[in-house]
Amino acid sequence: MFATPQDAEAAFYDAFVKRDLDAMMEVWSDDDDSYCVHPGGARVSGVERIRESWRRLFAGGQDLRFSLRDQQLIHTMMLAVHSVYEHISVAGQSRAQQPMIATNIYQRTERGWRMVAHHAAAAPASVRQEADTGPATKTLH
Amino acid sequence: MFATPQDAEAAFYDAFVKRDLDAMMEVWSDDDDSYCVHPGGARVSGVERIRESWRRLFAGGQDLRFSLRDQQLIHTMMLAVHSVYEHISVAGQSRAQQPMIATNIYQRTERGWRMVAHHAAAAPASVRQEADTGPATKTLH
Repeated sequence: MFATPQDAEAAFYDAFVKRDLDAMMEVWSDDDDSYCVHPGGARVSGVERIRESWRRLFAGGQDLRFSLRDQQLIHTMMLAVHSVYEHISVAGQSRAQQPMIATNIYQRTERGWRMVAHHAAAAPASVRQEADTGPATKTLH
Repeated sequence: MFATPQDAEAAFYDAFVKRDLDAMMEVWSDDDDSYCVHPGGARVSGVERIRESWRRLFAGGQDLRFSLRDQQLIHTMMLAVHSVYEHISVAGQSRAQQPMIATNIYQRTERGWRMVAHHAAAAPASVRQEADTGPATKTLH
């Protein structure tokens, strides 16, 4: 049970870093209207297809680290929108990856706050330089 | 005043097609937390910067046509999330452009439903083929 959208978001990135499929799917709503857009990918809808997309992604097997920056929030009683820059690095590599912009949407359910949408896309390379000199708003792992 | 999120969405794409900056900004909320991610672009936040981003985009001057497909909705009392595939064509060109996936978010305000977020990114080319053989769910212009 996630008491707040922030709790659900922390669990989402924690599951992502650990490549823990069960933990990832505990964050997602069971709603058929849930959808996920991985960077450069098509939209994947419904909990079963979303689970399969994460299974494949985790099977890729890179150890990723996320630094979330410039989080911007739109909260209402039932739905919360989080826009974040994901600065991703791969364990053992010093070179920074291209940053991503993610829209993460959480819905209040009978079982706490759950993710109903994740839409991630590559940000322009210029963002990397700007962001690398700015303060991190939140660092996970 | 847009009575429903669908009305706001229709006005958004209508303003986009007409390159009508004032009509576009009537769709957007005045909230500083509003944000816009154009395909491949950085996030633009707040009504003034959002307006400037559309002014520049409209100055590019291509006559675009939108066919919206596979709209998927998450509605709550105060916030509505619309995920759509944007199939875009340029007037006078027969070749289809790369489709986009957009997350459009609308908030109920004292002045009706207004857009608070638009996050668009290129979909993979394979989507074009699938979508070109499928039925359009809604066509604007």
